[in-house]
Amino acid sequence: MMSNEKLVKEITSMEEDFAQWYTDIVKKADLIDYSSVRGCMILRPYGFAIWELIQKELDKKFKETGHENVCMPMFIPESLLQKEKDHIEGFAPEVAWVTHGGSEKLTERLCVRPTSETLFCEHYANIVESYRDLPMLYNQWCSVVRWEKTTRPFLRSVEFLWQEGHTVHATEEDAQEETLKMLNIYADFCKDFLAIPVIEGQKTDKEKFAGAKATYTIESLMHDGKALQSGTSHNFGDGFAKAFGIQYTDKENKLQYAHQTSWGMSTRLIGGLIMVHSDNNGLVLPPNIAPIQIVILPINMKKEGVIEKANELKDLLSKKYRVKIDLTDKSAGWKYSEYEMKGVPLRLEIGPRDIQNNQCVLVRRDNREKVFVNLDDLETTINEMLKTLQQDLFDKALKHRNENTFVAKTLEQFENQINKKQGFIKSMWCGDTACEEKIKDLTGATSRCIPFEQENISDTCICCGNPAKKMVYWAKAY
Amino acid sequence: MMSNEKLVKEITSMEEDFAQWYTDIVKKADLIDYSSVRGCMILRPYGFAIWELIQKELDKKFKETGHENVCMPMFIPESLLQKEKDHIEGFAPEVAWVTHGGSEKLTERLCVRPTSETLFCEHYANIVESYRDLPMLYNQWCSVVRWEKTTRPFLRSVEFLWQEGHTVHATEEDAQEETLKMLNIYADFCKDFLAIPVIEGQKTDKEKFAGAKATYTIESLMHDGKALQSGTSHNFGDGFAKAFGIQYTDKENKLQYAHQTSWGMSTRLIGGLIMVHSDNNGLVLPPNIAPIQIVILPINMKKEGVIEKANELKDLLSKKYRVKIDLTDKSAGWKYSEYEMKGVPLRLEIGPRDIQNNQCVLVRRDNREKVFVNLDDLETTINEMLKTLQQDLFDKALKHRNENTFVAKTLEQFENQINKKQGFIKSMWCGDTACEEKIKDLTGATSRCIPFEQENISDTCICCGNPAKKMVYWAKAY
Repeated sequence: MMSNEKLVKEITSMEEDFAQWYTDIVKKADLIDYSSVRGCMILRPYGFAIWELIQKELDKKFKETGHENVCMPMFIPESLLQKEKDHIEGFAPEVAWVTHGGSEKLTERLCVRPTSETLFCEHYANIVESYRDLPMLYNQWCSVVRWEKTTRPFLRSVEFLWQEGHTVHATEEDAQEETLKMLNIYADFCKDFLAIPVIEGQKTDKEKFAGAKATYTIESLMHDGKALQSGTSHNFGDGFAKAFGIQYTDKENKLQYAHQTSWGMSTRLIGGLIMVHSDNNGLVLPPNIAPIQIVILPINMKKEGVIEKANELKDLLSKKYRVKIDLTDKSAGWKYSEYEMKGVPLRLEIGPRDIQNNQCVLVRRDNREKVFVNLDDLETTINEMLKTLQQDLFDKALKHRNENTFVAKTLEQFENQINKKQGFIKSMWCGDTACEEKIKDLTGATSRCIPFEQENISDTCICCGNPAKKMVYWAKAY
Repeated sequence: MMSNEKLVKEITSMEEDFAQWYTDIVKKADLIDYSSVRGCMILRPYGFAIWELIQKELDKKFKETGHENVCMPMFIPESLLQKEKDHIEGFAPEVAWVTHGGSEKLTERLCVRPTSETLFCEHYANIVESYRDLPMLYNQWCSVVRWEKTTRPFLRSVEFLWQEGHTVHATEEDAQEETLKMLNIYADFCKDFLAIPVIEGQKTDKEKFAGAKATYTIESLMHDGKALQSGTSHNFGDGFAKAFGIQYTDKENKLQYAHQTSWGMSTRLIGGLIMVHSDNNGLVLPPNIAPIQIVILPINMKKEGVIEKANELKDLLSKKYRVKIDLTDKSAGWKYSEYEMKGVPLRLEIGPRDIQNNQCVLVRRDNREKVFVNLDDLETTINEMLKTLQQDLFDKALKHRNENTFVAKTLEQFENQINKKQGFIKSMWCGDTACEEKIKDLTGATSRCIPFEQENISDTCICCGNPAKKMVYWAKAY
């Protein structure tokens, strides 16, 4: 039997080595296993269960807002990928190529989709005819492949799971409205389910999606002060429509080019969950996205009535919550560590003496707060504790972000700050890509977004001193 | 505006050209669109909605029986695919090979998974340690790729969606129990949801899965008398475990090889739905798997109160059923054809006079039976009609199968029968692969399965005249 101590000691502390701490958690919490394919991970049941919950909630939101799911092929012929020139330039260096089917060499190479704009556009060109057909609001859940050199579980892998929404609209305004609507759905989801606060804003031209007119993003801050791009939403204007010939007849029977959007979120979010909430005892999961919200651990299981009572509580609580009961013969200490490692929000302990007193013990994962609860009040107490825990995680993450968001008025301040302690840096920018590149070269930080909530820090660009146009969030990023 | 007539005329009748009738339905019912990738189809919203319902029901059954979802990489290194020799021989001719990542040639080719036994085995070898870990009951929902030369939507495509269950057990008996349990879940699902009767049985050695010890199958019969293999479940014994080194320590602390199973169902089922239930007016869907169970068509929509009443009924019925209301300005005739084409089980019409009489009209898709229903009885009537419709479709399919199942005692009878009319042919077999191959060469029919429900038709093999061992179902098959 594995001892409590052994399990805990196997995690590197985040202060000692943040990257190793992260890797330890993804492995020890049974989220993933490595495969023999470079850069591709295996999502184990516990990791996949988190993704299933993310899927379920997002899918519900998508459907409520009129979106329909479809399924596109995973392959894109080389000629199709090349139809929009910015798009192919952006993606060609990182796609996997299928060259043979069975023993035959293909006449045209197929890439494994890195994203599916070209496939959707070809389909839309085929099915869009009249203004009556619009908008078309499609989404697909699938995996995509990008031939990354350096990979890390959830954050950057050769294959990853995501959803990609692709929509067609009659007008520029409709497309813009959709782009921002989906960004807001993403932001609300992060806040309400993942307990992760995000900055909403627009990407600079340098950082926008290959082929987009405008890219919007939600950015979150990790424990270590690095930023994570957590979801993006793109307005394509009519660029793809012109490249692919997506036209509709308007009410006056005139042919018009359509306007399009795309938007995506991925298993990256699970990396974000780890790096925003977790600690040196393992994963910490917000109740709203935890595969197991409450684990029931009967104490002194061999005593008469203990297992029965624990099962009774399980049946009661399962009506409303995701509950697990652990009846294995592992030691209590081992179980404590195991479910702490897995980030289960609440641990419920019940033993013979508790039963006598009509009570049980509830322990919060995040702060280890322990309370004795009368069984008559159990449901009310659990409901409150889970709500509070969810809110506390969000508040803590917001506090951390606020404490690690800095203002820089000069390049020197910027450099000093980022060398001292990583975080978001807010500073003014003239809008010139040359300045953006210079800042990156000097500091290693990239522009994360031009936030919707602008502040006027100073009148001049931090880099060139010319008149400033926008306040920008900068950070080193995953 | 498209006329009623036009829409209907576009379908070829099944008597005229069954293959074209099938293709017309998949296109005209908006199930799929073709893509520019040979043999890969686009699942459109309506087609994908059917698959989502199939997924939802099967996934529920899998989870109820203790299975967990995981996600494996889509790539398999060539060396890994080769580890089990029968398996590689079976699949090598039909895999797609990735040879380049970005601009670099890979040191080892990767195939896009045609099935994931090798990946699961590698993972299991990594994580299975003790008898306490067993059974491990995993499943994944994904797409797989098989480089087929001749393809048809749903029935045989280069890429298709499916689920693949992969389990590990301590003993041979446990693996066998799992194999048959999952076959039964498949059979029940076909019967209860798809209204498709199936023959359960075992595949002959010639027809079994590459690498399996035994393959079990459910076989269904299409309108045209051809068979469709609708789901398979494989017992691997310890063959893969030995090739991949999947061992566990038993209670006596001895190392043992594990026993494994795998089982799968795919979007083929949608092809089956079409070819079992549909007719010359389009798709016919069993209520239990129909994305829209009831379509509400208000008549004389401009008359005061009609839309309001129709919406009221929609809100009422949506609590229990999947309901769509069509408020577009298309003609009633066009709408009738459209929803017949899409196989919506019930059409509800309501106009000003109906409202006066507190009634509406319900029309069944399958037999066009039309009833006037008092609105006070609406829910009860709909509930009964949907149940009856579901059962009637099953009964009709079963009747068709029974009427197209023939007994052959001699090869001559067999040949005459299959040349006259296709269907299942039951005949006795000695167990020898040579006879099986000879029958195939002579008649074009393959052995579909050795059914669990055996009958003794005669004492000798239909082919060689030697003592018969088993009664076998034969048919030409998709």
